[in-house]
Amino acid sequence: MKIVITGGAGFLGQRLAKRLLEKTVGPLSLLLVDRVTTGTFDADSRVKSVVCDITDGAAVERLVTSDTAVVYHLAAIVSGQAEAEFDLGMKINLEATRTLLETSRRLPVPPKFVFTSSLAVFGGNLPAIVTDQTAVCPQSSYGAQKAMGELLVNEFSRRGFVDGRVLRLPTISVRPGKPNRAASSFVSGIIREPLNGQPAVCPVNRDVLLWLSSPATAIENLVHAHTISAQSLGASRTVNLPGLSITVGEMIQTLERVAGPEVVARIRFQRDEVAERIVTSWPGRFDTARAISLGFHRDPDFDSVVRAYQRESFPSSPVKP
Amino acid sequence: MKIVITGGAGFLGQRLAKRLLEKTVGPLSLLLVDRVTTGTFDADSRVKSVVCDITDGAAVERLVTSDTAVVYHLAAIVSGQAEAEFDLGMKINLEATRTLLETSRRLPVPPKFVFTSSLAVFGGNLPAIVTDQTAVCPQSSYGAQKAMGELLVNEFSRRGFVDGRVLRLPTISVRPGKPNRAASSFVSGIIREPLNGQPAVCPVNRDVLLWLSSPATAIENLVHAHTISAQSLGASRTVNLPGLSITVGEMIQTLERVAGPEVVARIRFQRDEVAERIVTSWPGRFDTARAISLGFHRDPDFDSVVRAYQRESFPSSPVKP
Repeated sequence: MKIVITGGAGFLGQRLAKRLLEKTVGPLSLLLVDRVTTGTFDADSRVKSVVCDITDGAAVERLVTSDTAVVYHLAAIVSGQAEAEFDLGMKINLEATRTLLETSRRLPVPPKFVFTSSLAVFGGNLPAIVTDQTAVCPQSSYGAQKAMGELLVNEFSRRGFVDGRVLRLPTISVRPGKPNRAASSFVSGIIREPLNGQPAVCPVNRDVLLWLSSPATAIENLVHAHTISAQSLGASRTVNLPGLSITVGEMIQTLERVAGPEVVARIRFQRDEVAERIVTSWPGRFDTARAISLGFHRDPDFDSVVRAYQRESFPSSPVKP
Repeated sequence: MKIVITGGAGFLGQRLAKRLLEKTVGPLSLLLVDRVTTGTFDADSRVKSVVCDITDGAAVERLVTSDTAVVYHLAAIVSGQAEAEFDLGMKINLEATRTLLETSRRLPVPPKFVFTSSLAVFGGNLPAIVTDQTAVCPQSSYGAQKAMGELLVNEFSRRGFVDGRVLRLPTISVRPGKPNRAASSFVSGIIREPLNGQPAVCPVNRDVLLWLSSPATAIENLVHAHTISAQSLGASRTVNLPGLSITVGEMIQTLERVAGPEVVARIRFQRDEVAERIVTSWPGRFDTARAISLGFHRDPDFDSVVRAYQRESFPSSPVKP
């Protein structure tokens, strides 16, 4: 089975690759496509990393070939950058998505096409609880581009060109590594940096409500997405994934429980209007009964998410029980 | 004031032009853009008709110039044709919309940009009554392309590139003239053809519920759209226009009341699965309180719509009271 992952050098792409290698029984050929290569999987003959501009149709055609069973399209310009660089966001988040779909359409067997969207498609006058029937109303360029990508994947699926699945991811926390240009970058930063002994800046108020998923749960859901049947999805291929509804203040209380007040003291509040405007336009409460019935996973609570991050990042350190 | 109308040779474009000429006080320059010219307004020096491929960015730039105050983007590949010719639909309904928006973005003053969308963006698991907060779930290529166009107009408006308004039109009935390639073409045909002494074919059952607007009311709403303030629209530029909720059977009863049983006898039922699948995926009941509060108009009832068509098409004939 050949699986192509765009954004394959990225945080989610690398973890997804690792999990697919662990879970797949039988032959597997994993093609990690990105602007850069990482070489993480050099020892595994099942994996190949290639550098490719996914807006280049001819280049994409050389990668998404007739033996491709699944395309994971994770590559994206994140929210903060898409807001600052509108044309780049349109090129990657919209045009490249269409290029990948058009290439997939030409394959003899329509591949599974798993597209990562985001809660950022929502905004404006939101109901108290968002469902899969809630209208999108993006208040960021990233959200608008993802919402158009969702429609493309749904339409190409309805026409039988691909067998698509659109996962609206919650904000992922705790991401390891460095801050990125997502408006929500701080949602990982306020946990990760203090635990790493670094100062962290929180650009929004304590009462801002977030909708979160751990990286591990997001990856389990991405793997699950290509195994469910098209029939079970019905008229819409788009699913709001389960998440945790939690305020910034509650996240910080969790950090204090898990790591102590001296760690929490490394967080400083300093308002950033752009990040605040984008992040507070997103919903914090969802009814994800449909996702649960489709077999998607949820994190039990944020304490376990922070502890999992600690275990992974500091495997030799003692962790508070 | 310079106003550009794409689809300017079409049914709505021609009527919109006529109404704008009647209603506009002060200087007006009306540019009717289409694949063909009509010459209807040759006598009026305020109107110019030009032939243009609106997917050609350079050609569009020569038309949407720095003095353009309003763009009415009505040109579209209709539902039946977009379903039969997918790539053509993508080209006109999606790409040309983006080309027009990108051209408008380069103007010194962001123009009003009025985009006609459709109830065809809705489908799938619909609530009993559709509102402006109902998620789109298009079950036709036309609906999917219009839904993406809506997102483009909203995003270009949010960024301040244009001052957009998206009107989701009900099915228009009674259209004069000939059948077209819209899946809903019969919705006019079953009234128009019998009144014209011609046979008509109805491809769906009597109990199919439709959401209709007369041509005159649709035109009043299009004119109104460019006069309302951006602020009044709030976070979403998209409005479900008012309509009449009526079954095919009730439409035929209306025709009988207005024109008699011998006219109704000209209608024959013959199922067309493609038209039926598309038309029955559309909702038939809306709550359009927001549109009404924004000052958009509604037809009082279908009897008056049919009588208005009769008066317009047969001005010298006696009309039953």
